[in-house]
Amino acid sequence: MVFQSSTYGKVLVLDGVIQLTERDECAYQEMITHLPLCSIPNPKKVLVIGGGDGGVLREVSRHSSVEQIDICEIDKMVIDVAKQFFPNVAIGYEDPRVKLHVGDGVAFLKNVPEGTYDAVIVDSSDPIGPAQELFEKPFFETVARALRPGGVVCTQAESIWLHMDIIEHIVANCCQIFKGSVNYAWTTVPTYPSGVIGFMLCSTEGPAVDFKNPTNPIDADDSHTKTRGPLKFYNSEIHSASFCLPSFAKRVIESKGK
Amino acid sequence: MVFQSSTYGKVLVLDGVIQLTERDECAYQEMITHLPLCSIPNPKKVLVIGGGDGGVLREVSRHSSVEQIDICEIDKMVIDVAKQFFPNVAIGYEDPRVKLHVGDGVAFLKNVPEGTYDAVIVDSSDPIGPAQELFEKPFFETVARALRPGGVVCTQAESIWLHMDIIEHIVANCCQIFKGSVNYAWTTVPTYPSGVIGFMLCSTEGPAVDFKNPTNPIDADDSHTKTRGPLKFYNSEIHSASFCLPSFAKRVIESKGK
Repeated sequence: MVFQSSTYGKVLVLDGVIQLTERDECAYQEMITHLPLCSIPNPKKVLVIGGGDGGVLREVSRHSSVEQIDICEIDKMVIDVAKQFFPNVAIGYEDPRVKLHVGDGVAFLKNVPEGTYDAVIVDSSDPIGPAQELFEKPFFETVARALRPGGVVCTQAESIWLHMDIIEHIVANCCQIFKGSVNYAWTTVPTYPSGVIGFMLCSTEGPAVDFKNPTNPIDADDSHTKTRGPLKFYNSEIHSASFCLPSFAKRVIESKGK
Repeated sequence: MVFQSSTYGKVLVLDGVIQLTERDECAYQEMITHLPLCSIPNPKKVLVIGGGDGGVLREVSRHSSVEQIDICEIDKMVIDVAKQFFPNVAIGYEDPRVKLHVGDGVAFLKNVPEGTYDAVIVDSSDPIGPAQELFEKPFFETVARALRPGGVVCTQAESIWLHMDIIEHIVANCCQIFKGSVNYAWTTVPTYPSGVIGFMLCSTEGPAVDFKNPTNPIDADDSHTKTRGPLKFYNSEIHSASFCLPSFAKRVIESKGK
């Protein structure tokens, strides 16, 4: 469903759940993309799982070092609807580096040669329903295999206010699979339940990744702003700040994490 | 109105607007209190304007240096309802350092001797309606007069997602009145509109206050946790992080601020 709201502009709804609105999509798309890509030097090959609306692609394409952007989205209608009603989001598809694969992300990842990607971004829906397996250990294993040593993954990881039980489970899973580092960051997205959404940021064994201190600041090169406009939400300070957790969440995540 | 919700516990509503819920009141009360009080060494005299539910009092009373806590709340029914339905919030009134004044905050402040307080916390409702004058220059002048040199004020300052026009106005007013520093911080509160709420943190001329780096960490002395339980939300890292703004807000606030 797509509808026009009075305060948040046009809204995209899938299975009764708000996926994005024109007003606040910047917070989600910019954070899920630049948190991983600004944490490693010169990302070249990036895979997006889900993210059919094109917003993550739009943000990945701000990075001039990137040579290849694969996207695997299972639902072709999301792509078509985004192109029709959300041109400022679907603009991500216009980048010639983008290669679209319509299909199942898990199956796609299994066929990827080991060590292919510098970064994988998992822009999934909630872990109840079709996206459930994207939060389980076998999936994280497939992601880790597809990443180069010291490669990074960023996955949508629910709300600290509502889903600490799910987050605890995801953190524990990630700690077993990702031998580099495992971190949780969060941001404000008013139209998501409880107004916040979090991300798991993990790296594979290899060159160490210090997620909390961006090594590849997007602010430094502003050539991308000519075609895509300035960043609305992300900057290097909010990157580091997003890893600071409220005490109630910190206690749980640090007890599971590393 | 008070009602029981399925996800957020009991909810307090004034004039149709949610004031607090049991689940997320910690984020608001802890941040509006400890952001100012942890930014100055040894706060002794603290004034709370509004905050009739007692939650800010509960948080102020965690600070062992504090000798006097005045509160001026205009609406006695808020106090009575909080004591009846929200005992874990109204517990703030049990501290013997608290002196309650039921009346108009603006009138109260006018009668305060110049330079009385180390900190003033303005826990007001929205600037549309009875609380409007708490966001205007004459009020800020009265607050500044009541503060000692290098004293601090923290006022509720709306949502960066919804009220940038109001925030711009408040920042401009504060910059004219407070000759120390003027800063904007924000936090997540799921049940407030857009899921975030901000605070203006200002200091008067005198010893410099570096709000972004807490000088008086509450985490250091945990004697308060025996009677009031551990802090649920606030910690020193989230204190500093709360001053990092999304780019869209940073551009506006920095153009007005100093």
